[in-house]
Amino acid sequence: MTLDPERILRLEDDGVVLLDQRRLPDEEVEVTCRTAAELADAIRGMVVRGAPAIGIAAAYGIAHAAASGADVDEADRVLRASRPTAVNLAWALDEMRRDPSPDHARTIHRDEVARCRTMAAHAADLITPGSRALTHCNAGGLATGGYGSAVGALIAAWERELLEYVWVDETRPLLQGARLTAWELERASIPHAVIADSAAASLMAAGDVDVVVTGADRIAANGDTANKIGTYGLAVLADHHGIPFYVVAPTSTVDLATESGDEIPIESRDPAEITGRFAAHNPAFDVTPAALVTGIVTERGVHYAPYEESLTAETAAA
Amino acid sequence: MTLDPERILRLEDDGVVLLDQRRLPDEEVEVTCRTAAELADAIRGMVVRGAPAIGIAAAYGIAHAAASGADVDEADRVLRASRPTAVNLAWALDEMRRDPSPDHARTIHRDEVARCRTMAAHAADLITPGSRALTHCNAGGLATGGYGSAVGALIAAWERELLEYVWVDETRPLLQGARLTAWELERASIPHAVIADSAAASLMAAGDVDVVVTGADRIAANGDTANKIGTYGLAVLADHHGIPFYVVAPTSTVDLATESGDEIPIESRDPAEITGRFAAHNPAFDVTPAALVTGIVTERGVHYAPYEESLTAETAAA
Repeated sequence: MTLDPERILRLEDDGVVLLDQRRLPDEEVEVTCRTAAELADAIRGMVVRGAPAIGIAAAYGIAHAAASGADVDEADRVLRASRPTAVNLAWALDEMRRDPSPDHARTIHRDEVARCRTMAAHAADLITPGSRALTHCNAGGLATGGYGSAVGALIAAWERELLEYVWVDETRPLLQGARLTAWELERASIPHAVIADSAAASLMAAGDVDVVVTGADRIAANGDTANKIGTYGLAVLADHHGIPFYVVAPTSTVDLATESGDEIPIESRDPAEITGRFAAHNPAFDVTPAALVTGIVTERGVHYAPYEESLTAETAAA
Repeated sequence: MTLDPERILRLEDDGVVLLDQRRLPDEEVEVTCRTAAELADAIRGMVVRGAPAIGIAAAYGIAHAAASGADVDEADRVLRASRPTAVNLAWALDEMRRDPSPDHARTIHRDEVARCRTMAAHAADLITPGSRALTHCNAGGLATGGYGSAVGALIAAWERELLEYVWVDETRPLLQGARLTAWELERASIPHAVIADSAAASLMAAGDVDVVVTGADRIAANGDTANKIGTYGLAVLADHHGIPFYVVAPTSTVDLATESGDEIPIESRDPAEITGRFAAHNPAFDVTPAALVTGIVTERGVHYAPYEESLTAETAAA
């Protein structure tokens, strides 16, 4: 059973309502953001997270600002600055400036979920029967506003009886894998086990991982991919062990204005997420060079290297 | 300032006294184990951990059993079964069967610390000036009964002004890096930052890591090395980025009776260490193939591949 998109986030008369992802899986609590500033705080604080879901939340934020007579320029400014790495946020805000209506925001939401279902079907074509997949962070319905990108691919593969098992990186420091992906896989009745992020390598060496599937927060024109910290290391390990490494993400994640991963801003978060007492360094994302990515799956299909031409053609056609 | 070996663990008339490593860095609390069964529980529960320190604790446990008229065979049996991966435990128990006196146990402890100082000096010779090192888990004084193996090497390099900075893997699930190694480095006034284990790869890609230094729980005759889960992945990543990867451990960690890493038993620990609610898989160690190890440093000096001859010669000479 996949999550109802409206349960994850929706627009109501008094504001943007978010399922509080910080409190999952222990509690299902909703938070209502009545202003763009409140919504930006919720995005920064990861009440809602995941590149597409952040974009949808921001779209609702603009719609709410416009409908309630707030300053839409100011709402755009505070939302755009809330998190730097995901590009879907800027994409959704640009979309909403053309038409800030609630209907447009809801269409963006509905379209993102529909794109997930389409890309999941493309990605499932790549999964060989009996596969044990490994995923990192949460690229599930919670991250995309419904169904999920990487987790959507796993659900589609499971429904086609191609998938045997999922290894879930717990994903330090905020444990999106252990808290959110495991919760979604449990709802979908897909067999899984959470592992320490550092255990992925030995599972690969033991031959227990057949494919790695992750989402993305921004894909540069050359195919370099920013995603949750730890994704790059997984890609190196997958390459070392001859395991395919697929990125599943909607075209709203592709940023042709960013030539390569070097230009993607990487958010540094509070060291307190890592350790209360000692100095810490806490980058939230890393960049996986295109050369380590076996394929990038969007709602348009599967892209292979060299990515630049293919991603450009796709986005032009969109 | 390094830790006083007697503060880490010691033998007293009423039992084996351990600094409770589970409660560091928040509290410095001692636990007294009055029977071998209590000591085995403390080892299993990681009140004391680290391959050499486990061996020393077991030596004190045999000495206490012998001195208090308990059944030494039974004490040997319960201690030997307490944790499977580290070989120093079996080594120390074998040593104590020859002479179960308190003096012998104290000599084992004193010798392990002296070996650490010697191997640290050898390892520091391998550190180039201005190095930023990365270490995993805690191979510090807490793990060896004093001074430390990998952390000892960092201290020696720091004293020679070769070391600039240390990246400390937090080391999930029990956070020995974030809790214990950071605490030891702070005591030694060595600049450091704790990172999520999954952040090591992007630091390597950015050119911010010059050398990786870890300890070991068991080194097979061919140089394959078992150490805390995550070490193998670091070795693959170091190799990919052309970064030297050194293992620093006393000869009591070398097990010539184990031909290769395939034969090293890997302890699976309670899934609850990873997640309370969902299924989890929690191997405590992994095996790094000798081919990925740039050098193995013991108190005898630096060994390079092929390791078999060199490790055999060393242990024969010991």
